[in-house]
Amino acid sequence: MLRYDVTTNDWVIYAPSRTLRPDDYTSSSSTERTSAARCPFCPGHEDMTPAEIASMREGDHWSVRVVPNKFPALRIEEPEERHEDGRLFRFMGGCGAHEVIIDSPDHDTSLALQPVDQIVRILSMMQQRYIDLMRDSRFQAIVIFKNHGEGAGTSLAHPHCQLIATPVAPKMLRNKLAIATQYFDQTGRCLYCDLLGHELDAKDRVLAENEHFIAVLPYASHVPFETWISPRVRQSSFRWLDPALLKPLACQLKEILSRLHFGLGNPDYNLTINTAPRGEEDSEFFSWHIQILPRLTTPAGFELGSGMSINTMLPEDAAKFLRSVEIR
Amino acid sequence: MLRYDVTTNDWVIYAPSRTLRPDDYTSSSSTERTSAARCPFCPGHEDMTPAEIASMREGDHWSVRVVPNKFPALRIEEPEERHEDGRLFRFMGGCGAHEVIIDSPDHDTSLALQPVDQIVRILSMMQQRYIDLMRDSRFQAIVIFKNHGEGAGTSLAHPHCQLIATPVAPKMLRNKLAIATQYFDQTGRCLYCDLLGHELDAKDRVLAENEHFIAVLPYASHVPFETWISPRVRQSSFRWLDPALLKPLACQLKEILSRLHFGLGNPDYNLTINTAPRGEEDSEFFSWHIQILPRLTTPAGFELGSGMSINTMLPEDAAKFLRSVEIR
Repeated sequence: MLRYDVTTNDWVIYAPSRTLRPDDYTSSSSTERTSAARCPFCPGHEDMTPAEIASMREGDHWSVRVVPNKFPALRIEEPEERHEDGRLFRFMGGCGAHEVIIDSPDHDTSLALQPVDQIVRILSMMQQRYIDLMRDSRFQAIVIFKNHGEGAGTSLAHPHCQLIATPVAPKMLRNKLAIATQYFDQTGRCLYCDLLGHELDAKDRVLAENEHFIAVLPYASHVPFETWISPRVRQSSFRWLDPALLKPLACQLKEILSRLHFGLGNPDYNLTINTAPRGEEDSEFFSWHIQILPRLTTPAGFELGSGMSINTMLPEDAAKFLRSVEIR
Repeated sequence: MLRYDVTTNDWVIYAPSRTLRPDDYTSSSSTERTSAARCPFCPGHEDMTPAEIASMREGDHWSVRVVPNKFPALRIEEPEERHEDGRLFRFMGGCGAHEVIIDSPDHDTSLALQPVDQIVRILSMMQQRYIDLMRDSRFQAIVIFKNHGEGAGTSLAHPHCQLIATPVAPKMLRNKLAIATQYFDQTGRCLYCDLLGHELDAKDRVLAENEHFIAVLPYASHVPFETWISPRVRQSSFRWLDPALLKPLACQLKEILSRLHFGLGNPDYNLTINTAPRGEEDSEFFSWHIQILPRLTTPAGFELGSGMSINTMLPEDAAKFLRSVEIR
């Protein structure tokens, strides 16, 4: 079920099946630090996951595997009908999808340490799953993300990514699109292209460049070491990325994650792909990008009460540090 | 310094003095778990804090004490001038204020366990500091908050609250005001009053009531056990609360915090006072409220990438549980 917050115009997803009883919240952490011996994502344990959705295989072995999340936030079987209980209590069925992409058969690795070809396979699988899920016209947006480390909210140590298809477009994405559209109306230009141009001119926050992608620690980063990877040639949706460019993207992503890994001692982080929702995949005003958000500080009462961030490090200082990191 | 994020229209506060070097982020936690012997907030250690701003005293002893935050996010001495470096890189001086309210001389207590009269003193001090800080016309909003526990971002164990005066109105507050204003334009009624009425009719999410205040776990709560305390008679700003009503407010706040404390084993939480920014303190469309946000789950990549919340517990179930808690 989703409920509409009439004070913020956000939908909230309710997934009570992910927990059991109120008392469960008294245990300090819900994280299962399963060992490889009992890990549902390890080879040989395929029967511990729900039925496989897709995989990449070489001979008898899979290299990347997609399965439904066992505790889904949203499910394909749920209705998408909307209801009103009075004027202000609006809800709808928990229609959507929640999939897990297992990054590797190897339990004890992380995305930063994968070979480039394996990162290509993971990114390719994200794109294939995006395109396949978007065939279901009930889904308005696909959020692709990775939670790396306990502090980033992961519940299983075996490296994996996730996709959640939502039956409503997240308001945050709508806001970004509206702001970029207004900028276009005022200036005739793309906000994201202009921003990237400004960063390339300023140079001091640019972390990596290749022929097709640019990695920048944005001028107004919300957290220390926040990094965006953007295509040089603007596309509104990740779905349009030419598969031939997955390799330069994987190279740059590996470089950024390696700088974080070796420079900051394998920090917890979230990675998300910001991409336009349905109906705006062909927008001229938005540019999809990968956003990497290290979890080095804890948002507290000020951030929750104001929506504003306090960042303890200037992005140009963070970029300078990351550029100096030796990748082993 | 504050920088403007042109992709979201939020200001980000930069407080690099709060940290030293990039390498400092490699240590897993920046929290100082100081013992009472070295605690700057304990009686006898008054010279360890910057000069006192205000206090409540009985004889030689203080019961509540206000001091500047030693590592301020914003400072009164900073300029509030705005600058543009190119079209898209906008910034302004870190003008504002950042104060700490020490809740009690007692190091080993928490707000839930304070006597009602002490909670009255703390709330009264919050209101006095709000009114005093708002005399400075550069400040657009005052965010009042408490971080309880390490998971809620506190850096000192001695119980305390904080106030941050910001030179810009947080966009989140502006959005809430805009939504409530539009509701008024459509219906001729106050959104927050209507919501409270709906919750009182529905009953199952109401946690406590007295003559002047109502505590509700909102229909579209974003996190498990989220609780709002609202005045029955709408006021846009906490500044207008009649000091005679601080006692019934303190009683209800103590009850809610005690239910959380005894029911969930002293969970980490953030408490914030949502109150209208300058220029909207007399708005007919908003209602100040205390928001209590337990930190029982970790927002992860989905939440950061979409702005949507996944809540693992229905508020009516959480309310039922909290009502059943025995307060010792």
